Amino acid sequence: MPNGAQALMKTLVDAGVDVCFTNPGTSEMHFVAALDHEPRMRAVLALFEGVATGAADGYARMAGKPAATLLHLGCGLGNGLANLHNARKGRVPVVNIVGDHATFHTVYDAQLQSDIETVARNVSPGFVRTSQTTAELCRDAADAITAARGLPGQVATLILPADVSWGEGGEPCPPPPLPQPEAASDATVSAIAQAISQAARSGGKTAFLLGGQALREPGLLAAARVAAHSGVKLLAEVFPTRLERGAGLPPVERIAYLAEMAGVQLAEVQHLVLVDAKAPVSFFAYPGKKSDLVPDTCTVHTLASPEQDAVGSLHKLAAALGAAQAQPALQAAQRPGRPRGKLNAAKVCKAVGHLLPEHAIVIDEAITSGLMLSAMTAGAPRHDLITLTGGAIGQGLPNAVGAAIACPTRPVLALIGDGTAMYTLQALWTMAREQLNVTSIIFNNASYSVLNVELERVGATEAGPKAKSQLDLHGPVLHFAQLAQGMGVHGVRATTTEDFLKALEYALAHPGPHLIEAVVPESLSGAKRKLLPWLLRSLPNLPQPVAQALKRKIAP
Amino acid sequence: MPNGAQALMKTLVDAGVDVCFTNPGTSEMHFVAALDHEPRMRAVLALFEGVATGAADGYARMAGKPAATLLHLGCGLGNGLANLHNARKGRVPVVNIVGDHATFHTVYDAQLQSDIETVARNVSPGFVRTSQTTAELCRDAADAITAARGLPGQVATLILPADVSWGEGGEPCPPPPLPQPEAASDATVSAIAQAISQAARSGGKTAFLLGGQALREPGLLAAARVAAHSGVKLLAEVFPTRLERGAGLPPVERIAYLAEMAGVQLAEVQHLVLVDAKAPVSFFAYPGKKSDLVPDTCTVHTLASPEQDAVGSLHKLAAALGAAQAQPALQAAQRPGRPRGKLNAAKVCKAVGHLLPEHAIVIDEAITSGLMLSAMTAGAPRHDLITLTGGAIGQGLPNAVGAAIACPTRPVLALIGDGTAMYTLQALWTMAREQLNVTSIIFNNASYSVLNVELERVGATEAGPKAKSQLDLHGPVLHFAQLAQGMGVHGVRATTTEDFLKALEYALAHPGPHLIEAVVPESLSGAKRKLLPWLLRSLPNLPQPVAQALKRKIAP
Repeated sequence: MPNGAQALMKTLVDAGVDVCFTNPGTSEMHFVAALDHEPRMRAVLALFEGVATGAADGYARMAGKPAATLLHLGCGLGNGLANLHNARKGRVPVVNIVGDHATFHTVYDAQLQSDIETVARNVSPGFVRTSQTTAELCRDAADAITAARGLPGQVATLILPADVSWGEGGEPCPPPPLPQPEAASDATVSAIAQAISQAARSGGKTAFLLGGQALREPGLLAAARVAAHSGVKLLAEVFPTRLERGAGLPPVERIAYLAEMAGVQLAEVQHLVLVDAKAPVSFFAYPGKKSDLVPDTCTVHTLASPEQDAVGSLHKLAAALGAAQAQPALQAAQRPGRPRGKLNAAKVCKAVGHLLPEHAIVIDEAITSGLMLSAMTAGAPRHDLITLTGGAIGQGLPNAVGAAIACPTRPVLALIGDGTAMYTLQALWTMAREQLNVTSIIFNNASYSVLNVELERVGATEAGPKAKSQLDLHGPVLHFAQLAQGMGVHGVRATTTEDFLKALEYALAHPGPHLIEAVVPESLSGAKRKLLPWLLRSLPNLPQPVAQALKRKIAP
Repeated sequence: MPNGAQALMKTLVDAGVDVCFTNPGTSEMHFVAALDHEPRMRAVLALFEGVATGAADGYARMAGKPAATLLHLGCGLGNGLANLHNARKGRVPVVNIVGDHATFHTVYDAQLQSDIETVARNVSPGFVRTSQTTAELCRDAADAITAARGLPGQVATLILPADVSWGEGGEPCPPPPLPQPEAASDATVSAIAQAISQAARSGGKTAFLLGGQALREPGLLAAARVAAHSGVKLLAEVFPTRLERGAGLPPVERIAYLAEMAGVQLAEVQHLVLVDAKAPVSFFAYPGKKSDLVPDTCTVHTLASPEQDAVGSLHKLAAALGAAQAQPALQAAQRPGRPRGKLNAAKVCKAVGHLLPEHAIVIDEAITSGLMLSAMTAGAPRHDLITLTGGAIGQGLPNAVGAAIACPTRPVLALIGDGTAMYTLQALWTMAREQLNVTSIIFNNASYSVLNVELERVGATEAGPKAKSQLDLHGPVLHFAQLAQGMGVHGVRATTTEDFLKALEYALAHPGPHLIEAVVPESLSGAKRKLLPWLLRSLPNLPQPVAQALKRKIAP
C-alpha cells in the first residue's frame, strides 16, 4: 500500500493534474520522494514561491486545467499569495498543496509553526482543508480538484501535514467528474434578447461585457454574430484572464484601466450584458469620484455568471435573436511597419506587432509602457493575451513559465515593466533550467511610472522630492541583461530601436529563454503627465466624438 | 489641520518610529506625499515587500525600537509575510502599515480587493486593526505602536484605507508610554535559587536557556555570574534574535538545530531555567521521534517569560544566590589563522573569523555552509549575531539592510546560502541605493543542501533522481556576482581561498555594499551525508563524552 504522498500523487495525476510547480522544504520531502514513483507527474522547481504559484496560474490559463503547487508551510504560502490572488481574481483553477508540520508537532509551536488556514482563506475562500489522516487524504485531494475546477475556477488549498504525507495506508481516489455548467435559462435569454432587439429598434446602445470563458474563440464568435446582427458593441474586461485575438478573430475593446476613459467607453451604453464578467468598477478609489463605472442610465443584465456555461449561453442568445448564421466582423491581418528612430516604449510595442509569430502567447504586464501594445498587435497573427487579473504585480514572468510548460511548441513573449519584473525575477532561472521558449521584454524606464500618474490622480498634489524619490528607480539603475545572465538566461540590453529589433529577431529565431532589456523613457513623462489629470477630468464633459478621439490619443 | 496621513506620520515619529521601509502603491500615495511634511521620517524604498519587512525586522533588532513598513493591500502583505513571521517568532517589534482601498470602494470587490485581516492574523495575532476614520487614525496608530513594543515585541498591523489616509481632520496622538515590564517575583526567584543550590550541592546539572533580551551583554553577564558561582551551564535558543558575543563577553552554547545533537546537549540537565526563552522543541517533526527536546527527567523552571524583565530577573536571581559579585567567565580574544588551500564553506567561516572587524553585525543565514561560523568567530572581537528566528528563509539580506540603517557606523556581514539568497535578492538594490556598509557573502554550492540531509532524516529513503533534482540548483548555476552587479552592488566571485580573502579584505576596507560569492562544495556531501543519519541515530545511545566529541566533530 502506498504512503500518503504516493497515493496523493496518483490521485492528482489520474485526475489530469500532472504538473506541479514546487518550492519544497523539509515537511514536503515525502511528497518530493513520491515523484520517483509517478513518472507521469512533472515537477518544475522554482526558486521562490511566487514563481511557483504564478506558473501554476499561467499554466492553467493555457492548459485549461489546473496544475498543483507545492509550498512550504504558512510562509511559503505567504510568498506565493500575490500570484494566487491573481489566479483567484482571474477565476483560474489551482490545486495548492501546502505542507505543514506533522499533526503531533503543531502543539509545540516550533519556529515555522503558524496559522496556515488564516492565510489561505485570503485566496481560497471556497476551499481550505487541512487533511487529518492518510486514509482521508486522497478524498480531500479529489475534493480540492473538484473545487479548483469549478465553475468558476478557483484556488483550492489543501494543507498536508508531514505525517499524513508519510503515513502508510494511502488510498488513491478515482478522478472526480468534470464540472457540467448549465447555460442561461430560456427566460433569461429571452429577456435579454428582447432588450437587445428593442434597443436596436430604438437606436439605443447595447454592449456585451465579455470575460473569462467568453473571451476564447467560440465565445467571441457567438458574441460577434450577435454584434453583427443586432448592433451590439463588444467590450472585454479590463484585465482578461486569457483573450484570443489577432487576425481572423472578432476584435473586442477592453475596458480602460483609467476610470475616466472607461467612463467614455460606457457613457452611452443603455444595456450592458454581462457574460462571465462583473460590472465594471474603478481599479482604485479616487477622492470625489464614483467607483461604479456603470452609468446611472444603464441597465445591467447578466446573461451568464461565472458559474454558468458562458459560450452555451451566447449560442442560445444568438439563436433567440436569429443571429446564429450572421457573419461576424473579423479582424483583418495587418502589422505595423518596422519602427525606426529613438527607442521608446511605443516602438517596442510596434516592434512586437511587426514581428509577432503565429500562435504566440503574449503576456502583458508592461503597465504604462504597454499602452500601445494592444493597438500594435491588433491585426497581428492570432495569439493569446494574458493580463494582470488581480493587479498584484509580479505575475508576468511566472505566468510565462507556466504558459510555456502548458504549450511547449508556442512562443511566449512576456512584456514586463522594470518595477514589476523585480517582484518575481527568479522565474528566469526556471526558464533556463527548463529551457522554455520565453522571450522576456523588460521596459527599463527606471520608474514606478504608473505611480507618478496615480500620485496626481488621487490628489496627493503636495508631494515633494521625498515622495517622488519613492517612485524613482534610479540610483542605481537596474541592469536586467546582467540579471538574466546571472540566472543563466541569454540577456541583451537594447538602447536603440535597431538593437531592439535585432535582439527580438534573434530571440524569436532561437529556442530557449531570452531576455531583452529595452532602455526607454517613461511613456507618460513631463508635460504629458501634467496634462493627463486635466485631460481625464475633462473627458466626461466633452462631446462624445471629441472625448473618443482624445481617448484614442492617450491610449489607443 | 493635517490630513490623516500627515497626522499619522507625526504620531509615528513623535513615538520614535522614524524609519519606514516602503513598497507603496496607489492606495498609499497620500502616505508617500506626507513624507515631504515630516523631515524626521526616513523612508527607505524596497523593490519587494519581503525586503521591506525583513529590513524592519533587522532594524528593530539593532535599534531596539520598531520601524514602520508601508505595504500595498493584501498582496503586498502576503509578499512581506515570511519576514514578518521571522520577526514574530523573534519577538521583534514592527509597526506594519498596510494600505487598503477607500472604505467606500471595498464593496465593489475591485481587482486588488481581498481580505487583508485574515492574512494579517498570521503574523499579528495580537494586533490587527483597520482604521475606520481619519479622526481615529492616530489613536489606532498609537495603539499599534504600544502593541508592537510589547513586551514581548510583536508585529502590529494597522490597515489604512485610502480615504482614512487622505481625509481631512487628522489628529496627531502623543507618544504612548514605553512598556515597564516587571522582574520575576520574589517567590519565583527564591524557588529557582533553591533548585540551583540544591543541584549544585548534589552534583546535578543545571542550565539556563537564555533567549530574547537575555542574550545581550547585561543579561549574559548576570547569567554568567550565576554560572560561575553555582555551576550552571549557559545555553541559548537555537536561533537567537540578537546575540552579543565575542572576546570579552560570556560565551554561551546555542541549542543545536539537529534535534539529535540538542538531545546530547540536554541529556544530563536536571533543571532547565528558561529566561525569555521557550522550552526547546525539534525544528521539524520526524517519524518516530519526540518533538519535545526536554528530557523526561528534567524539571523546567521559568525565571522570566517574554512578558517580563529578563535582565532584572537575572539580577534578582544572582543576588538571591549571592552571585552578584562573582567573576563571570569571559571569552578570551582569539582568532583562527589565515585559511589556505582549496576553498570550502569552513574556510569562508575561518576567513570571517580571521578578519571580523570590531562591533560588526553578523547575520547568519548560511544554513549548512555556516556550520563552522560559530566556532570560527567565538573569540573574534565583540559583535552581534542575528539569526533565522522563524525559519522562513530569505531573512538575511533584508535584515542586513535594516541593521545597517539602524547602525550606520558598524560593518554588517551577511552570510547567506545560495538557495536562501534567491528569496529576497532585491535587498541588494536597496543596499546600493542607500550605500549601506553591508558585505554579503553568498555560499554558492548549487544545492538546497539542508534538504539533502532532511530527505534522509525524515526517512524518505525511496527518493530517486526526480526527487534529488528538486534539491539541486545546477543547470544553470547561479552567478551571484553578476546578479549583484545588475543591482548596482560591487560583486566578486571567489573560487579560491586566496581570492576570497582578498575580496573580503577589500570589502571591509571600502565603504558601501559588496557581495562576495564563494563557490564551495556542499558542506555535507557524499560520504559525510550518508554517515550523518546513522551518526545522529547513534548519538543518544553513545556514552556522553563520546557523543559530545562526535557532536563537536559534526558541528562544533
